[in-house]
Amino acid sequence: MNLSVESVPIITPRLPSVRPPAPAEPPGPDASRAYPVREGVLAMPAVFPLEHGGELRDARLAWRLVGAAGAPVVCALGGISANREVCLASDPRNGWWSEIVGPGGALDTDEYQVLGFDYLGGSGDSTGPEPGAAGPTAERGVFPSLSSYDQAEALAQLLDHLGLASLAAIAGGSYGGMVGLAFAERYPERVARLIVIGAPDRSHPLATAWRSVQRRIVSLAAACGQAQEGLKVARALAMTTYRSAAELAARFGGTASRDGQRFVFPVEEYLFARGCDYATRHRAESFLTLSESIDLHRVDASRVFVPTTVVAVREDQLVPLEDLRALAARLPHGRLHEISSIYGHDAFLKESYQLRGIFRAALGSPK
Amino acid sequence: MNLSVESVPIITPRLPSVRPPAPAEPPGPDASRAYPVREGVLAMPAVFPLEHGGELRDARLAWRLVGAAGAPVVCALGGISANREVCLASDPRNGWWSEIVGPGGALDTDEYQVLGFDYLGGSGDSTGPEPGAAGPTAERGVFPSLSSYDQAEALAQLLDHLGLASLAAIAGGSYGGMVGLAFAERYPERVARLIVIGAPDRSHPLATAWRSVQRRIVSLAAACGQAQEGLKVARALAMTTYRSAAELAARFGGTASRDGQRFVFPVEEYLFARGCDYATRHRAESFLTLSESIDLHRVDASRVFVPTTVVAVREDQLVPLEDLRALAARLPHGRLHEISSIYGHDAFLKESYQLRGIFRAALGSPK
Repeated sequence: MNLSVESVPIITPRLPSVRPPAPAEPPGPDASRAYPVREGVLAMPAVFPLEHGGELRDARLAWRLVGAAGAPVVCALGGISANREVCLASDPRNGWWSEIVGPGGALDTDEYQVLGFDYLGGSGDSTGPEPGAAGPTAERGVFPSLSSYDQAEALAQLLDHLGLASLAAIAGGSYGGMVGLAFAERYPERVARLIVIGAPDRSHPLATAWRSVQRRIVSLAAACGQAQEGLKVARALAMTTYRSAAELAARFGGTASRDGQRFVFPVEEYLFARGCDYATRHRAESFLTLSESIDLHRVDASRVFVPTTVVAVREDQLVPLEDLRALAARLPHGRLHEISSIYGHDAFLKESYQLRGIFRAALGSPK
Repeated sequence: MNLSVESVPIITPRLPSVRPPAPAEPPGPDASRAYPVREGVLAMPAVFPLEHGGELRDARLAWRLVGAAGAPVVCALGGISANREVCLASDPRNGWWSEIVGPGGALDTDEYQVLGFDYLGGSGDSTGPEPGAAGPTAERGVFPSLSSYDQAEALAQLLDHLGLASLAAIAGGSYGGMVGLAFAERYPERVARLIVIGAPDRSHPLATAWRSVQRRIVSLAAACGQAQEGLKVARALAMTTYRSAAELAARFGGTASRDGQRFVFPVEEYLFARGCDYATRHRAESFLTLSESIDLHRVDASRVFVPTTVVAVREDQLVPLEDLRALAARLPHGRLHEISSIYGHDAFLKESYQLRGIFRAALGSPK
């Protein structure tokens, strides 16, 4: 994934995949169909001022547009680990949101084109902290603090670039929902509908507490030259907040095993396996930037005039139900769906059945 | 607090405190009354075998007995940070459980003598990991894994030493409740009643997850020669699990402040102030030992025949209400009290009003 900087999108029609669906796979997006994909890296204006001060110079934004050519465009945004590969054109069963987005999915690529981009500050191909920038003296190198408004501003630039006056919708989970709210507040004329899953107008102090600890873990480890080791532990902690107590209880109630002089608990093995995997794909400095961005997020819901569907997960430890009830009540055109999911905060990635009806109701018929 | 090893308790009658109660203090234990205190350090048998293998050699157990001479004895045990100083004889307003235990308290030192001890493996004057034992190659030095049954065994040795055939009760919160359950299962004839607050028969996997991350933080930092720095971060994480989401929301909803290149959030300032304070008083190696002990705790509730009062806090993130309902149902003579507290898991330290009635009902009249 090394894209060169382009001011003109690369248009890459893809041939249908020759790989047939594996027989053992559960019913899901049909991999035998494939869509045109357009992707590129937008060269942003030479100076891109930031919400919390400072600026990015010569920033790039890596993006990808997949789905039926000419169909209305929905921007799909996920958590801080998500990227522009929402679902793959060559095999829609892959991509970070492939359980929700794809042919026949809750967000149906037969009906919509789906736009994704790599977050500014992240580990993808958009501008972010340089690898190795975290060090003993400057824990995020020289990369400035980012706001969800900055991501929204980048999306506006991307729409200009693509010649899109407006989006049919933004569908965002977690941090992506925050970016959606920020965009809708700033550019009400550029998005017709908003779907926000597990994202508040501001972070709950307990969620900020958990993320602050994650950032301190990475900073402490970085000060010892062990930033990626710290990232493993930070991600393990994050995992405890993404899932529900009930899921962990159901999966990890077994007994501890000896590992040399100490015991290792089943849930610990799971968390640190996830943490190790994460650390191979993400940079500690990017994690610090985007994690902080979640906690800096604050929008005035009363000024978000775009019709907005809020999806709250009762078991979400990071975004309490009460906070999303309050958000929906403050939105001028808000509607709340409360769902239950053993996946907690991660329900936005998993609950394809429950989200299908909600997406259909929110999006209506494509124009 | 440097006690020499004694096989005979030191009997230290204390004079009434000359310090009058400060006028601004809320009503609480009366500091003008003081009690005899007996304290000492028990020399345990030369070889003390441990539940999970290995043994302690020439172990010591530091203990303290406060309250009306001749009154029935209640053993009071707290979390892994607690020690033998349950409430101070010279000023009952001090001590780790002084909001609950003292003259006129929920556990009334006019009616009971209160016995406390420093946990094996802890940072007090009982045998534990040596300072500095945590290092790059052995994260707990050579100190073996400890079980709640080991603490129970130490208590049994202490009762022998004090010439006490049995206790009127054990009242334990958090880890102390686990030790109480372990003791009651092993020595039903040596304790008449058990009060268990926020302690299950086994740890919930989500709680184990949070503690596993805390231990990994300390281990990672110790490998860099920064064990106490790691302990600060680990304690900050622990604090997020001890209190309730509602308390943090009420206290720390303010905006972030700049600290050089980054932002610091109000809840973060609080957590790390608590973490720094903790790290001055506790050793990383002891934390690792006792934290692991919580996760190794498993008792068979159906074999705990001592009449047991279980107190569950609905807002406790570490010990879910459902787990304590199940515990109480499995206990042959169990009774459950469900309370609400903004203090979450820490309610056992704070809810003096709610606990007063529960203690009175559980303990009955002193003999």
